Amino acid sequence: MTKRTDMTRTSAGYFVSQETSIAADNPIATPQASPPDILRCAYMELVVTDLAASREFYVDVLGLYVTEEDENTLYLRSTEEFIHHNLVLRKGEVAAVAAFSYRVRSPEELDQAVAFYTELGCDVRRSPDGFVKGVGDSVRVVDPLGFPYEFFYQSDHVERMSWRYDLHIPGELVRLDHFNQVTPDVPRAVKYMQDLGFRVTEDIQDEEGTVYAAWMRRKATVHDTAMTGGDGPRMHHVCFATHEKHNILSICDKLGALRRSDSIERGPGRHGVSNAFYLYLRDPDGHRVEVYTQDYYTGDPDNPVITWDVHDNQRRDWWGNPVVPSWYTDASLVLDLDGNPQPVHARTEDSEMAVTIGADGFSYTRADENEGKLGNQL
Amino acid sequence: MTKRTDMTRTSAGYFVSQETSIAADNPIATPQASPPDILRCAYMELVVTDLAASREFYVDVLGLYVTEEDENTLYLRSTEEFIHHNLVLRKGEVAAVAAFSYRVRSPEELDQAVAFYTELGCDVRRSPDGFVKGVGDSVRVVDPLGFPYEFFYQSDHVERMSWRYDLHIPGELVRLDHFNQVTPDVPRAVKYMQDLGFRVTEDIQDEEGTVYAAWMRRKATVHDTAMTGGDGPRMHHVCFATHEKHNILSICDKLGALRRSDSIERGPGRHGVSNAFYLYLRDPDGHRVEVYTQDYYTGDPDNPVITWDVHDNQRRDWWGNPVVPSWYTDASLVLDLDGNPQPVHARTEDSEMAVTIGADGFSYTRADENEGKLGNQL
Amino acid sequence: MTKRTDMTRTSAGYFVSQETSIAADNPIATPQASPPDILRCAYMELVVTDLAASREFYVDVLGLYVTEEDENTLYLRSTEEFIHHNLVLRKGEVAAVAAFSYRVRSPEELDQAVAFYTELGCDVRRSPDGFVKGVGDSVRVVDPLGFPYEFFYQSDHVERMSWRYDLHIPGELVRLDHFNQVTPDVPRAVKYMQDLGFRVTEDIQDEEGTVYAAWMRRKATVHDTAMTGGDGPRMHHVCFATHEKHNILSICDKLGALRRSDSIERGPGRHGVSNAFYLYLRDPDGHRVEVYTQDYYTGDPDNPVITWDVHDNQRRDWWGNPVVPSWYTDASLVLDLDGNPQPVHARTEDSEMAVTIGADGFSYTRADENEGKLGNQL
Amino acid sequence: MTKRTDMTRTSAGYFVSQETSIAADNPIATPQASPPDILRCAYMELVVTDLAASREFYVDVLGLYVTEEDENTLYLRSTEEFIHHNLVLRKGEVAAVAAFSYRVRSPEELDQAVAFYTELGCDVRRSPDGFVKGVGDSVRVVDPLGFPYEFFYQSDHVERMSWRYDLHIPGELVRLDHFNQVTPDVPRAVKYMQDLGFRVTEDIQDEEGTVYAAWMRRKATVHDTAMTGGDGPRMHHVCFATHEKHNILSICDKLGALRRSDSIERGPGRHGVSNAFYLYLRDPDGHRVEVYTQDYYTGDPDNPVITWDVHDNQRRDWWGNPVVPSWYTDASLVLDLDGNPQPVHARTEDSEMAVTIGADGFSYTRADENEGKLGNQL
Repeated sequence: MTKRTDMTRTSAGYFVSQETSIAADNPIATPQASPPDILRCAYMELVVTDLAASREFYVDVLGLYVTEEDENTLYLRSTEEFIHHNLVLRKGEVAAVAAFSYRVRSPEELDQAVAFYTELGCDVRRSPDGFVKGVGDSVRVVDPLGFPYEFFYQSDHVERMSWRYDLHIPGELVRLDHFNQVTPDVPRAVKYMQDLGFRVTEDIQDEEGTVYAAWMRRKATVHDTAMTGGDGPRMHHVCFATHEKHNILSICDKLGALRRSDSIERGPGRHGVSNAFYLYLRDPDGHRVEVYTQDYYTGDPDNPVITWDVHDNQRRDWWGNPVVPSWYTDASLVLDLDGNPQPVHARTEDSEMAVTIGADGFSYTRADENEGKLGNQL
Repeated sequence: MTKRTDMTRTSAGYFVSQETSIAADNPIATPQASPPDILRCAYMELVVTDLAASREFYVDVLGLYVTEEDENTLYLRSTEEFIHHNLVLRKGEVAAVAAFSYRVRSPEELDQAVAFYTELGCDVRRSPDGFVKGVGDSVRVVDPLGFPYEFFYQSDHVERMSWRYDLHIPGELVRLDHFNQVTPDVPRAVKYMQDLGFRVTEDIQDEEGTVYAAWMRRKATVHDTAMTGGDGPRMHHVCFATHEKHNILSICDKLGALRRSDSIERGPGRHGVSNAFYLYLRDPDGHRVEVYTQDYYTGDPDNPVITWDVHDNQRRDWWGNPVVPSWYTDASLVLDLDGNPQPVHARTEDSEMAVTIGADGFSYTRADENEGKLGNQL
Repeated sequence: MTKRTDMTRTSAGYFVSQETSIAADNPIATPQASPPDILRCAYMELVVTDLAASREFYVDVLGLYVTEEDENTLYLRSTEEFIHHNLVLRKGEVAAVAAFSYRVRSPEELDQAVAFYTELGCDVRRSPDGFVKGVGDSVRVVDPLGFPYEFFYQSDHVERMSWRYDLHIPGELVRLDHFNQVTPDVPRAVKYMQDLGFRVTEDIQDEEGTVYAAWMRRKATVHDTAMTGGDGPRMHHVCFATHEKHNILSICDKLGALRRSDSIERGPGRHGVSNAFYLYLRDPDGHRVEVYTQDYYTGDPDNPVITWDVHDNQRRDWWGNPVVPSWYTDASLVLDLDGNPQPVHARTEDSEMAVTIGADGFSYTRADENEGKLGNQL
Repeated sequence: MTKRTDMTRTSAGYFVSQETSIAADNPIATPQASPPDILRCAYMELVVTDLAASREFYVDVLGLYVTEEDENTLYLRSTEEFIHHNLVLRKGEVAAVAAFSYRVRSPEELDQAVAFYTELGCDVRRSPDGFVKGVGDSVRVVDPLGFPYEFFYQSDHVERMSWRYDLHIPGELVRLDHFNQVTPDVPRAVKYMQDLGFRVTEDIQDEEGTVYAAWMRRKATVHDTAMTGGDGPRMHHVCFATHEKHNILSICDKLGALRRSDSIERGPGRHGVSNAFYLYLRDPDGHRVEVYTQDYYTGDPDNPVITWDVHDNQRRDWWGNPVVPSWYTDASLVLDLDGNPQPVHARTEDSEMAVTIGADGFSYTRADENEGKLGNQL
């Protein structure tokens, strides 16, 4: 990725540069086939161990709308969604992610997906009737990073609930915003995602160029998914957007009232990365859910890539509030296409937590005072 | 009230002065008895003609909490209330107000209320068990202006719902804020209210000293009740407070979703008077309900009285948005202690609507440009 | 456009259908040349008659950031913009619009723009150094509807102010959202815009299929521009987005404090169309500026087109608040490429104001009660 | 204070009871003299070591209005204040509190203050021209707990800035809300404050009746001051109120932009106690400033006293977010009437931090699961 010497420091403390191709040490070869034209992250299929408990969390507490349900599966959507679902909860033995699903621009793109991943030597399966209800012809793959990715175009249409204010709750989740994945080698992952047509919007690096995380988009927001450096493949979180900040605060207030405040893992706070206001929750299986609002438009081809110094204590929380260790260490397993958990490979580079917190790490609030080892964020 | 020459014009365009005793043309004599020590406006008893329709409006739409109900009566309260109710809806033939009820500081104050109003020659009735459920020893009177006033101290306690965020809705009404009464002669009414222990916080006058409305308080907000000049005695509105402005906006959004937007009479907007953000609704019987937030502390004895020029187009709506004629002309009947509607007496002085709107009235946005007759707010 | 019989009525009262090609009575021929690939509306060039007064309005009141200025010209941008400007104010004799400017995906798209409009027989001019500062190679045309359209790719980059919260004001304008144009024949205009690559998201029709307005997008919001039926070509408004609704309210509060509340023409309110919260202002020359927040994602190819019944009183304001006549009748002149005002042609079809307001129009709140002629919104 | 067996547990997890007189082990004798009738906490006089740095913090960052200033002193007020100031910053050698100042109901109350504190054997001084500018006849005492308390009635009036929205910032501080004091023996302090006319609204106790903190009010909010158990006399914080929660969030955002996020000590969050939304900052001298919004009305004589279990992890933060140790341990020195720091006496009872955090403490989210020692809030 871009070297710090080729970046411009802004008045707010981060760096900007133009996106470049990644030089990964152990790159995944770029296929000859064009990638499918992806519109956006569309839904996640989650395996949960107690469907009733998960229904209570996602429907009764978070207020997602139930499009359809049966004994083993719940199909949920956010307020403004017009396709069948943004989240599928399926009952199973092991809590894990069965699919990160992206919508493509047309039915024909599925042929591209097959060609692209076949060339990459991946396990590729296609189901003309879809792998879940409400969605038609779909392609599922285990991608080169080990994640179960899905692509589809056809979906049943349902009513947008945006005008149904009579049904809205104080913490209304209006939109699926993004996924976040954990993978050991971030530049390797980013290079592959660029090949798949994603654009980088932000990243976290140190002065030596070690990359700790990167954010990538198809739709014109900061991301459709992010790659977080760590033991993987694992799923870090799935994120829904609200309209305003008070909507997010009201989720916390409600969890307190329900005596479920221990579901709040981190936040609420303001991200440095993305500039969004955020909150991280943990569902009954420990799957992490972010709630998020007000990042920025990224749809121009020359959209400046933002790089944050890993030692900048405002990169993850603009207010300098601590990132709890579990946020760095915990993540959900992901499944292969037969439903078996993927093995997890350890990150070998420095971990962001180690270099920023505690006896061996340091963070600064003001870059020109960074000689001091703070290590006291937590 | 204070003459304009004794007022100070502020940088925001209104005038301030210290409260004075009112010289009314036809004053109600000040009793020898001390008035009861009033804490605050506590509840209104409304007669409604269709209890189911009113329940839908106040409970399903506005979200007031039902403390108790029976076939003919609903006892409702706002989120943070700990006494039994803030609103009683009683089924009856004629939509009207049966009581403007104030809480006093102690049981003994009821003797004071009896003495005060007996001396004024009013119809005074006392019920040791209260006139409605949930409230004990109470005094009801028809006051010298013709309004049914109630005073009580004892009330059953109920749980404050402030921490029950799991039950809150986007338009949560947290507090009964004030009443508003229509009466023909405002200075005469204010003088009597001062005798009853109320303090004036704001008023609307013209340069000649005609008073169009006045706001008066016991608790330390802008008002517990206001006197609006017009044909009376009638009830202009009852007002509940929200925490934030978006709560008020969400009530409008919800009414739109329910295809009940014609319940919105005026607003939302920012008041000049009181500085509060507001909305006026009409219930199924036409009773007017205000929703309001963020006025200011008035509890100091030398709290400056604010006077607005009746021709200042920002006095009623700080944004200069028009006041609809119905807001000036419509109001609810009030009942005597036998349940009969009080006769309505016409205001003989200029009406605020006439002097500010249309062919004969004028309003200015900038005082130094007031030569121009605008008359075009509507 | 789609016939009502082919639409589905939603639970909120509007209709949905899939976008179709428009059958206009007097269509503009579709060029053989592909249209330029447009990213988004990028800036408007406005001619203003008093640059100091306009600076006060756009910079001191609305808080737009000054990228650059000279004696005759101001280059302004919103908080999160990274290109040189979103608004150019140029001093001139006649208040008018000199350019509706769109950013395209690459420099090569400008050749497409030239080809596309040359084929349409339009006045087409290209300036390799741009027509204004901060922008490079640009193409300006007078389009078949008579509007001065610009296309460019190259722009100087400036710092995004999103993280500079120390500079933000309560009414912070974060993004240019859209333009709105007045044209006599809406279907004819929409057909041409579809040829230019725009997608329809919403429209207003009557049961007979008369189209009163239509909204069209390139970026994934409800619109980059809209066509409003009326005497044209004229510019109805330019719109900036805020993050939250209170930001919009604070603009009204500030205008009140500055005794400029007469700059508020309509709102604030909630649109039916777009579901956004809105406010309309008039600048010192009468140019209309909208402030807007929280519409919805429209980026999928099968995004449902929403059609509002022209008689639905909640289509323009979800709360049923009146649309002031000036909002329907007033608009800004637009210039040809020599700087001369374009002649204005009258709309010959029914006007939305006439069919919805007053003695000859009607509007309903509930569709099933629409026999009654209301005509009383104002 | 009330025993747990005489309290009622609410559905939200705290207890309610009626206020009782305190039985302190080592009580301060109740004077025969009536206490002065206190209206409200009015201002704090703070000694700061670097006046320019403090001006930057309180004026440039927090936006307090400067009523008056000279080389050594700054007189600041919040938006809606009409008396001369809410905060006096005076340059000095040792950062400390010179006065907790309360406004009384009339000039005559000062004689009561003299009598009350003289009878208590305190150092009592009266200055007919006030101890600071803008305030007249004043009484200062060192109270029996060692705190410098002031009482006054007369103050110059200044303009309320509530309508001056043109001057408001996103983080507008509208009102002085309360003080918070650290004292070793909370019941002893509360008993004295009750004698001074304060009413208890909330407290934190354990099952054995050890009191960790108590909140007391004169005006009808949750408090004018609170007593926090710890080494004292010291000042824990001074608190200003905002209108809405986003105002508080914007202060954090601004501190981030100024690279001063290390001024944020705790929060933002939702209190259990008081139900308010909060943030704690540290000024350049380490004086703690709270920003707070939306507690509840407490003005009725039978207002239920709320008791929180010290082990309830939602008592201090409703969302269960950790209280940082510095919040428990740090506080400002207070001065005697000669300007010398008061000696600090250690608390001998259990500290709240020790019983709730770490190896020896425990906290629960759900009372019925409290067997588990959590000790992991931080």
